[in-house]
Amino acid sequence: MEHGNNEIGIVKTKFAIVTDELVLESGEKLGPVTLAYETYGELNPDRSNAVLICHALSGDAHVAGYHKGARKPGWWNDMVGPGKAFDTEKFFIICSNVLGGCMGSTGPGSVNPKTGQHYGLEFPLITIGDMVKAQQRLIQQLGIEKLLSVAGGSMGGMQALEWLRSAPEKLESAILIATAAMHSPQQIAFNEVGRQAIMADHYWQNGNYYHRGHGPSKGLAVARMVGHITYMSETSMLDKFGRQQKNEKQPFKFTADFEVEGYLRNQGDSFVKRFDANSYLYITKAMDFFDLTEDKPLHKVFRGLDAKLLVIAFRSDWLYPVWQSQEIVKACKIAGLNATYCEIDSNYGHDAFLLEIEQEAHLVSHFLKRVSNGYDMTGEYAI
Amino acid sequence: MEHGNNEIGIVKTKFAIVTDELVLESGEKLGPVTLAYETYGELNPDRSNAVLICHALSGDAHVAGYHKGARKPGWWNDMVGPGKAFDTEKFFIICSNVLGGCMGSTGPGSVNPKTGQHYGLEFPLITIGDMVKAQQRLIQQLGIEKLLSVAGGSMGGMQALEWLRSAPEKLESAILIATAAMHSPQQIAFNEVGRQAIMADHYWQNGNYYHRGHGPSKGLAVARMVGHITYMSETSMLDKFGRQQKNEKQPFKFTADFEVEGYLRNQGDSFVKRFDANSYLYITKAMDFFDLTEDKPLHKVFRGLDAKLLVIAFRSDWLYPVWQSQEIVKACKIAGLNATYCEIDSNYGHDAFLLEIEQEAHLVSHFLKRVSNGYDMTGEYAI
Repeated sequence: MEHGNNEIGIVKTKFAIVTDELVLESGEKLGPVTLAYETYGELNPDRSNAVLICHALSGDAHVAGYHKGARKPGWWNDMVGPGKAFDTEKFFIICSNVLGGCMGSTGPGSVNPKTGQHYGLEFPLITIGDMVKAQQRLIQQLGIEKLLSVAGGSMGGMQALEWLRSAPEKLESAILIATAAMHSPQQIAFNEVGRQAIMADHYWQNGNYYHRGHGPSKGLAVARMVGHITYMSETSMLDKFGRQQKNEKQPFKFTADFEVEGYLRNQGDSFVKRFDANSYLYITKAMDFFDLTEDKPLHKVFRGLDAKLLVIAFRSDWLYPVWQSQEIVKACKIAGLNATYCEIDSNYGHDAFLLEIEQEAHLVSHFLKRVSNGYDMTGEYAI
Repeated sequence: MEHGNNEIGIVKTKFAIVTDELVLESGEKLGPVTLAYETYGELNPDRSNAVLICHALSGDAHVAGYHKGARKPGWWNDMVGPGKAFDTEKFFIICSNVLGGCMGSTGPGSVNPKTGQHYGLEFPLITIGDMVKAQQRLIQQLGIEKLLSVAGGSMGGMQALEWLRSAPEKLESAILIATAAMHSPQQIAFNEVGRQAIMADHYWQNGNYYHRGHGPSKGLAVARMVGHITYMSETSMLDKFGRQQKNEKQPFKFTADFEVEGYLRNQGDSFVKRFDANSYLYITKAMDFFDLTEDKPLHKVFRGLDAKLLVIAFRSDWLYPVWQSQEIVKACKIAGLNATYCEIDSNYGHDAFLLEIEQEAHLVSHFLKRVSNGYDMTGEYAI
């Protein structure tokens, strides 16, 4: 497969044992911890051009470029590459699979070296804070003391917020896209339905399915279907599917009659081929428990920091509605933190952070240019 | 149990074989068809005071009063009774369980007299039109030629619309609450997730579970949980639960940590005790296939009718958003049909039709008063 001039080309996932033992927020110990990661571009001599991209619930380390033989590029390929928003000719881009994940990093599907068995539910509960702790070890191993930026959408934005809270001296800036300082009960509720669907699956077997050749794939598919509804907007569903019916008449009564049903079933089916159900449980719980404020007013979290923030939200995103981003920005303003807020008028719902590339790229590239040049950041962008 | 003066008191569900054979919209034949129903108040001598109330997805014939020994009254008890909106001192109120249901009417959980077995998936696909056809037979058996009104919320409103479309000469008026002329792809998608959750359950067994002593209760519970999220609003969830955590610390990792999780699990668990999973499949499919327009412009459906309509929608209802009610009203106006539209400013989401009793009762009682007195209906209500 040939790739154009503004494509990264073939990339490989790397693996690093980032620590022999990580003390988790819960007090439990986990180790050794491996993180899968990819890097693009070159670290400059003074190590000041590193940008960490954090992925969302179902993402992985493969943010851009092509794996050998693959037809599809990484999940944010439109944003990362030579001349793109995360410009690999200027920046050293890092993305790692989260702790608890299933794409190469240590998670419930990994083998516990102490027992020789898959962790399953023996895996300890992890938090967004624990994910960030593991990332910090990786960054350290890569010889980077301070990141130019930490960027992410959705759960990726939560990690960026956690970086700000727990290690503000280690980043110049953060890019928060379609995210929240904490989940609302509605967000928790949707995650809980996904978890219940997985745990209701006969093949889940209390998380103990790795050796059985059959996991809770139907339950996981249902969880993914719920997710997909919340990632789209009412309007984007109307635009994409309407009430269009599928042509095939099948003998079974409860087949997918409408296009939207077929779409959801396909999304569910393809997801179970690449994702581990237990990881879904652990990661969604970490999201639900995340609370940047720790019961303080949010602006107190930001007080005294001097990082620069870019906060982007999408008008039709009802899963991470704009008010959640606005709350972050308001708290920054109260704390005197330099935050730029941009609301993009998109119909794509929460998915917009993966789809509204043109406007998003414009905002991110200008922001990174300013940050890397040490420009004053007090201006607001017009959008 | 004692009941006050404005309570109906003890009531009993009745059963009627409404036809030996119903020819369904699909062309398939089903029979005999039994409907479970309840009535309240007295039919007046000229049989002009009958009001049919149609229930929503999970409702039943027991709309008001108390079953013997029951602690809870019927599902719309606040709206139906002496002196209430549906005033049983003035009106003869009828409510029947829908065809396909599981609360006494013929449905997939009934025994097929031809085989002596439960229908299961042998039960034919039914439509909102078929439900209304069965209701028409019941009304006929009760000796009523013309209903004063057909009223319903959600799927109940769809039935009222179908009455208007298919038998306009048989009703004076209709009350449509939080409903739609057809489902949007988002509404179909949520129903589809519920169906998938049921069919993913190992115990569903292609609908063939009645003799096994164990149905797809976990899958049905997940379906109900999804439903409940869509019945509430983001705001009502915030008001009711916030991020409140449950106190009990349980040994299991994926327990209900947040109040909202506990609420959803309880709702799911109590639902499976009273509802049949196959009925859930059949009824949701009927809702999804309902399309009042039949590919015509909606106003053509209303042209030439002289029924009076009251259309009520709730601002925070995102499952049946106000634009769906507004579309109905716009089409009525184009068709010259007498429709009054009221938008109630409630935080309760779709559940508002069961909870915003005060405003709803005010609107319904005035509307029924006008309709029953033959008043001119051109005025708009202030709300």
